[in-house]
Amino acid sequence: MSRYEAFVARKREHILRALDDACQATGLSGLDDFELEHEALPDIDLDEVTLASRLLGQPAPTPFYVAGMTAGHPDAAKINRLLARACERRGWAMGVGSQRRQLSATRADAELDQWAQLRAEAPALVLFGNIGLSQIIGTPIHYLQDLVTSIRAQALAVHLNPLQECMQPEGTPQFRGGRAALQALCAELGVPVVLKETGCGFSARTLRSLEGIGLAAVDVSGLGGTHWGRIEGARAANTPGAGMQAQAAETFRNWGVSTAQSVIHARSTLPRVECWASGGVRSGLDAAKLIALGAERVGYARPALEAALAGEEVLDRWMAQQEHELRIALFCSGCIDPASLRLRHAAM
Amino acid sequence: MSRYEAFVARKREHILRALDDACQATGLSGLDDFELEHEALPDIDLDEVTLASRLLGQPAPTPFYVAGMTAGHPDAAKINRLLARACERRGWAMGVGSQRRQLSATRADAELDQWAQLRAEAPALVLFGNIGLSQIIGTPIHYLQDLVTSIRAQALAVHLNPLQECMQPEGTPQFRGGRAALQALCAELGVPVVLKETGCGFSARTLRSLEGIGLAAVDVSGLGGTHWGRIEGARAANTPGAGMQAQAAETFRNWGVSTAQSVIHARSTLPRVECWASGGVRSGLDAAKLIALGAERVGYARPALEAALAGEEVLDRWMAQQEHELRIALFCSGCIDPASLRLRHAAM
Amino acid sequence: MSRYEAFVARKREHILRALDDACQATGLSGLDDFELEHEALPDIDLDEVTLASRLLGQPAPTPFYVAGMTAGHPDAAKINRLLARACERRGWAMGVGSQRRQLSATRADAELDQWAQLRAEAPALVLFGNIGLSQIIGTPIHYLQDLVTSIRAQALAVHLNPLQECMQPEGTPQFRGGRAALQALCAELGVPVVLKETGCGFSARTLRSLEGIGLAAVDVSGLGGTHWGRIEGARAANTPGAGMQAQAAETFRNWGVSTAQSVIHARSTLPRVECWASGGVRSGLDAAKLIALGAERVGYARPALEAALAGEEVLDRWMAQQEHELRIALFCSGCIDPASLRLRHAAM
Amino acid sequence: MSRYEAFVARKREHILRALDDACQATGLSGLDDFELEHEALPDIDLDEVTLASRLLGQPAPTPFYVAGMTAGHPDAAKINRLLARACERRGWAMGVGSQRRQLSATRADAELDQWAQLRAEAPALVLFGNIGLSQIIGTPIHYLQDLVTSIRAQALAVHLNPLQECMQPEGTPQFRGGRAALQALCAELGVPVVLKETGCGFSARTLRSLEGIGLAAVDVSGLGGTHWGRIEGARAANTPGAGMQAQAAETFRNWGVSTAQSVIHARSTLPRVECWASGGVRSGLDAAKLIALGAERVGYARPALEAALAGEEVLDRWMAQQEHELRIALFCSGCIDPASLRLRHAAM
Ligand SMILES: Cc1cc2nc3c(=O)[nH]c(=O)nc-3n(C[C@H](O)[C@H](O)[C@H](O)COP(=O)(O)O)c2cc1C
Ligand SMILES: Cc1cc2nc3c(=O)[nH]c(=O)nc-3n(C[C@H](O)[C@H](O)[C@H](O)COP(=O)(O)O)c2cc1C
Ligand SMILES: Cc1cc2nc3c(=O)[nH]c(=O)nc-3n(C[C@H](O)[C@H](O)[C@H](O)COP(=O)(O)O)c2cc1C
Ligand SMILES: Cc1cc2nc3c(=O)[nH]c(=O)nc-3n(C[C@H](O)[C@H](O)[C@H](O)COP(=O)(O)O)c2cc1C
Repeated sequence: MSRYEAFVARKREHILRALDDACQATGLSGLDDFELEHEALPDIDLDEVTLASRLLGQPAPTPFYVAGMTAGHPDAAKINRLLARACERRGWAMGVGSQRRQLSATRADAELDQWAQLRAEAPALVLFGNIGLSQIIGTPIHYLQDLVTSIRAQALAVHLNPLQECMQPEGTPQFRGGRAALQALCAELGVPVVLKETGCGFSARTLRSLEGIGLAAVDVSGLGGTHWGRIEGARAANTPGAGMQAQAAETFRNWGVSTAQSVIHARSTLPRVECWASGGVRSGLDAAKLIALGAERVGYARPALEAALAGEEVLDRWMAQQEHELRIALFCSGCIDPASLRLRHAAM
Repeated sequence: MSRYEAFVARKREHILRALDDACQATGLSGLDDFELEHEALPDIDLDEVTLASRLLGQPAPTPFYVAGMTAGHPDAAKINRLLARACERRGWAMGVGSQRRQLSATRADAELDQWAQLRAEAPALVLFGNIGLSQIIGTPIHYLQDLVTSIRAQALAVHLNPLQECMQPEGTPQFRGGRAALQALCAELGVPVVLKETGCGFSARTLRSLEGIGLAAVDVSGLGGTHWGRIEGARAANTPGAGMQAQAAETFRNWGVSTAQSVIHARSTLPRVECWASGGVRSGLDAAKLIALGAERVGYARPALEAALAGEEVLDRWMAQQEHELRIALFCSGCIDPASLRLRHAAM
Repeated sequence: MSRYEAFVARKREHILRALDDACQATGLSGLDDFELEHEALPDIDLDEVTLASRLLGQPAPTPFYVAGMTAGHPDAAKINRLLARACERRGWAMGVGSQRRQLSATRADAELDQWAQLRAEAPALVLFGNIGLSQIIGTPIHYLQDLVTSIRAQALAVHLNPLQECMQPEGTPQFRGGRAALQALCAELGVPVVLKETGCGFSARTLRSLEGIGLAAVDVSGLGGTHWGRIEGARAANTPGAGMQAQAAETFRNWGVSTAQSVIHARSTLPRVECWASGGVRSGLDAAKLIALGAERVGYARPALEAALAGEEVLDRWMAQQEHELRIALFCSGCIDPASLRLRHAAM
Repeated sequence: MSRYEAFVARKREHILRALDDACQATGLSGLDDFELEHEALPDIDLDEVTLASRLLGQPAPTPFYVAGMTAGHPDAAKINRLLARACERRGWAMGVGSQRRQLSATRADAELDQWAQLRAEAPALVLFGNIGLSQIIGTPIHYLQDLVTSIRAQALAVHLNPLQECMQPEGTPQFRGGRAALQALCAELGVPVVLKETGCGFSARTLRSLEGIGLAAVDVSGLGGTHWGRIEGARAANTPGAGMQAQAAETFRNWGVSTAQSVIHARSTLPRVECWASGGVRSGLDAAKLIALGAERVGYARPALEAALAGEEVLDRWMAQQEHELRIALFCSGCIDPASLRLRHAAM
C-alpha cells in the first residue's frame, strides 16, 4: 500500500467510524441539562422570525455552518461540492477539511483543481480554510496564505486535536510553539483566524491563555458528538498489534469539555472573540440552546456528512429541518432572531 | 373531504392521541420532587375535613375543575353533557373546549343548540368559555361576549399554545398584538378572564409580563401531562409528507415549564391573580401538592376525558377518588381544608 | 363471620402482607444516603466493644428492642412468648402489639391469661404496653393503667397511624383532642409514655408540637420499612368493591417521613426526649447509622416477626446477627459503645 | 489439614476471590465524579512528557508501584520475582505482602531464601516491607528491623484492616495500643514507615490523629477496588456454619472511604506526609486523576496480580499501558510531568 493509498484508507475509515453511533459521545454535550424558557405569549408572529445574523462582522442569512471535514475518499470532491452548493443556496457557511496535503508538493495540483471546481459552483459561499496546529508550527506564513487563496476562503480555521494526535499511530503530537505560531499567523495572514477544537472542547484555562492572541473566533467543538478518541480506538481495535491504543482509547472515551460548558467558558473569558459552537449539535433546538448560552454561530459536522451521503435532497431537507426547529425555538422563546435570544440570556 | 369533515377528523385524532401514553409528558410535572409533610398527630377528625374553597371570589364546594377540551367527534355533545352533569352534581367547575367555530357563522347554530341543551341539564354548573389567543386578536369584543353568553359562562378562558400552533399544519402561529388584545378583553368583557396554557406552562418571565393586564386567574397548565407537541408529532408521523413536522415534534417533546415550577413562579410573580393548576395532575395527592405550592384550584383534562368515555359511573367514581385522596392528604397533613394547606406553605 | 372472626382474619392478613416485600417501603429509609466514617486505626480491641446502653434512665445490655406487633392469629400468644423469652435472654426490650381488645370487656379475660403466661416465662423482660391514639381519647385513665398493669409494663407506647386509619375500612380516623389526651396521660399514668408512629415517621412540625407534653420518648417509626398504606392497599386490592381504597393506597404508597430524617428532626427539636428509631431497620449497620444520627434505641418489627415465625433458633441467630453487626460497626468507627458513636456525631 | 496447609489454602482463596469481580467495589472509588480539564493547546510535545517523580525524597523514574500482596500459594515466590523484575526494569516501586510468617520462627528460613533469590534478581528495585498493625503491637522493634533487613527494604509498610480482622474467622481485631506502637516504630526503625489501609481508606478524623507520629507516607488504599469485606464474605458463603459472617460481609460490602475522598482528606490534613494512592486504580487516567487530587504515587494491587498471573509479557504490556495512559493524560492536560499536574490543582 503506497503512502497515498494508506492516507485514503485512513480517511475512509474515519468517515465510516464517524457515522458509527459508538464513536459519538452522545449525552455528554451538556445540552440536556439546560432548557430554554417557554414563552407562552410571544408578542410576534412565526413568519416574522428571522435567522439573519452576523458572521465575522458581516451580515449572514443564518447562524449555521457545516464544520470542516476531511473527506479523502474517492467521492470526496463530490461530497464537498454538494455541501458547498447547498450551503450557498441556504445561506450557511462552510469549513473545508484539513488542507494539510496541499502543503506537500506532490498532491497540491489535484487539490487545486478540486477547489477551483467547487468555487466555480458556489462562488458566493462563505468558506473557511482548515489546517492543524502542528502544521502551522514552522511553516512559513505564505504557504498558509496559499491555502486560503486556493479556496478563496473568508477565514482560516486552525484545528486542535491533541488527544487524537496521541491516539493515532500516524499522529503528530507536537504542539510546542503552537501558541506563538498562532499569534504570528493572526498578525500576518490577512484573513481572520478561527481556532477550533475537533470534539474535545475548551477549558476556561485554555481560553484565558488565548487572550490577546488576535483570534477572530473560537469554534469550541466540544465533547458531545464525534469523538476522535473513540474513532481512533475503533480503528485500533481492528488493527492487529494495536491493543495498547485500543485500550487507551477506551480509557479516554469521555475525555473533553462539553460543548455547553465550553461555550459558557468562552463567553466569560473571551467576550470580544466570536464564539462558534459545534460538537454534538443534533437539532435546531440544540442550536438554540447554544445561542442562548452565548454562541454566535452553530456548526454541524457528522449529521451534515450523513445527510450529504444520502444525496442532495436529503441534505436540503435536513438543513431546512434545522432552520425550522431553530425558528420554532425562537418563536416559543418570544425572540425575533438569534441575537435577541443570545442577548436575553447574556443579561441574566 | 370537506373542511368540516377535516375538522372533525382532526379533533377525533387529537382525542385518540391524548389518550395515548406516548403523548403524555409523564414524569416531568415536577411533582415527584416535592413531598408533603406527614402530620402524625392531626388534631382533627377525618370527617371534619372539607374541600370547600373559593373560586373567583365565590364559595365553591371543591377546588376541582375539568379543564376545557374540544371534543369535535360525533359524541362530543354527549361527553360534554356527561361532564357537565357530573361536575354540577359534585361541585366541580368545568371549562368547555375552544369555541372558535362559533366565530364562523356557518357552524354557530349547531353549537348554540348544543350549549342550550347542556345548560338546561346543568343550570347551576360553574362554566368557563374558551377561545384561543390568535382568535381574540382583531375580533370585536362583542363576538367574544357572544361566546360567553351562549353558554352562560362565569368566566372566559383564553388559551395559549404557541408550540402547537407551530407544529400543526392548520396552525395559526400569529400572536403579535396578543397581550394588548388581552388587556382590552379584560377591561371590556364583563366576566372574569382566565389566561391558560395547554400543557407547556408559564415561565417567570411570561408571568411578569402579565402584571396589571387585568386577569382574574392564570391556569398554568404546565408540562407533565398531555403534550401538544407530542400529539401533533404523532399525527404527523402518520401523515405522508409530514416528516419535518414529525421530526420537529420529536425534538420538542419535552418543551415547556413543569406544572409545579409554573405554580411556584405564579405565586411569587402574580400574588394577586388566582393561580389555577392543570397539566399532568393525576391524583388527589398531586392536587394537594399543587395546593401546597400555591394553587387555588386544580384541573384535570385527559383523565376526565378518559373516565367520561367509560361512562357516567366510571366518571363519578373517578371524581370521588380525587376528592377522597385530597381529603386523605389534607387529614394526614393536619389541615382542615385546602386553604389551610396553601397558607401553611405560603408562610414557609 | 362474627366480629371476632373478622378481627382474626384481618390480623392474619396484616401479618401475611407485612411479610410481603411489596408492602415494604424499601430504599426510602434515608439510610443509604448516610455513611459512617471508617476508622482505619481504632485504638481498641473488638472484644472491648460493648452494646451496653441506657433505656428510660436505666442501664440496658443492648440498645435494641422488638417493636410492638398485634398478632391476632391463633399462634399469636406463642409468637409473643417466643419473642419475649428471646428478648429477655439477650437483653433486648420488647413492645407488645395494640392492647385495644382489652378495653372491650368481652375479650379481656383471654388476653389477661395470655399476658400472665408471658410474664411468667419472661419476668425480667423490659416490656412496653401499646394502644392507639384514637383509643386514649375519651378513655378514663384507669382503664389505660389496667393495660400497663396487665403486662407489668415498664412504659406505655401510644401509636399514631393516621394514614392507616384513613385507609382501612375498619379505621377510626378520629384524632381531635389527641394531643390533650396525651398530655393528660403523661401526667397521670404513672409509667413513662412513648409516642410512636407505625411506619410514616415524624415531621419537624409534629415534633415541635410535642414539646412540653411530658413524653419520655418518641419512637419515630419512619418511612422505609413496613408501610401500612401499602398493606391496606394490598388488602383492598383483593376485596371486591374496594377499588377506591386500593387506588388511594397506590397513590400514598410512599407517604411519610423517612426514618433517618425523622431521627434528625427529633434530635434537633426534642433534645430532652429519648429518641428511639424503628421503621426499615434491616441490619446492625442500619442500627449503627441511626445511633450516629442521634437515636438512643433501635427497633425492629417485621424482621423480628419473620425470624420468630421460623422458630426459636432462627430468631436467636437473627438477634445475634444484629448485635454482631452493630459491634463491627462500632469497632470500625473506633467507638467502644453506642453512646460514643452518638456523642461523636452530635458534636459535629 | 495442618496449620500451614490451612494458611496456604486461605491465601489461595484470597487470590481467587480478589480476581472475582464481585469482590471489587467497582464504581465506588469516587474517581468517576472527578474529571481532568482538557488542554486543547498544550505548549509541549508528547515526547517531552516525563513520568519522573520523587519517592521518599529520592528521584524515581515513575510514580507507580505495585501494592503489597501476600501470595501464599505454591507459585508465590515465582509471582513475586516476576513482579520484582518487571518493576525494577520499568522503574516502578514494589511492596511485598505481609511478612507476618517471618515473625514465627518455624517458617522464617523458607522466607529468607525466597527474599534472597528475589533480591538477587532485582537488586536495584525499590522495595517495601509489610506487616499488620496487630503484629507490631508488643513485638520488639528488632524483630521488625529483621523484616526490613531480610528484603533490604527501602521502607516498611504497616497495614490496617480492621474490617477484615472482624470478618475473618482467623482475624486478630486487636488494635489497642496501635498508635503508640506505630509512633515508637517510626522513631526507631531506621527506615521510613508507610501506613497503609487495604481497601477501606482513611477518614479525615483518622488522618488528623496521625499528625506528629512520624510517618513518611500514608498509602490511602481506599474504597473502590479490592474489598476485604467482600472477599471474606465470599469465603464465608462457601463455609458451612459461617452464615453470620457471610451475612455481615454482605451488610458491610460498601464500607469504607473512597480512594478519591481519602486523598483529598490526606492532602488537607497531613500536607507534610507523602500521599500514596491505591484502591481501585484501574487505568493511567485514574492515576492521573489521583495525582491531580494530590497523590505523589499511585499503586495497583489486583490488576498487577492479574497481569502477572498471565505471564511476563502480559505484565510488561500492562505496565506500559499504565505509563502510556498517564503520559496522554499529562499531555492533554498540558503538563510536562506528574508534579506539574499535582501542583496545578493544589493551587486551585
Ligand atoms: C469525518 C470527519 C472528518 C473531520 N475532519 C476534520 C478536519 O479535517 N479538520 C477539522 O478541523 N475538523 C475535522 N472534523 C471535526 C469536525 O469539524 C467537528 O469539530 C467535530 O466532528 C464535532 O462535530 P460533530 O459532533 O457535529 O461531528 C472532522 C469530523 C468528521 C466527522
Ligand atoms: C382532547 C383534548 C382537547 C383539548 N382542547 C383544548 C381546548 O380546546 N382549549 C384549551 O384551552 N385547552 C384544551 N386542551 C388542553 C387542556 O385544557 C389542558 O390544558 C391540558 O390537556 C393539560 O392537562 P392534562 O395533562 O390533565 O390533560 C385539550 C386537552 C385535551 C386532552
Ligand atoms: C404485623 C405487624 C403488626 C403491627 N402492629 C402494631 C401495633 O399493634 N401497634 C403499633 O404501635 N405498631 C404496630 N406495628 C408497627 C411496628 O411497631 C413498626 O412501627 C413498623 O412495622 C415499622 O417497623 P419495621 O419496618 O421494622 O416493620 C405492627 C407492625 C407489623 C409488621
Ligand atoms: C491478593 C491480595 C493480597 C493482599 N495482601 C496484602 C497484604 O498482605 N498486605 C497489605 O498491606 N495489603 C494487601 N493487599 C491489599 C493491597 O495492597 C491493596 O491495598 C488493595 O488490594 C487495594 O488495591 P486494589 O484495588 O488495586 O487491589 C492485598 C491485596 C490482594 C489483591
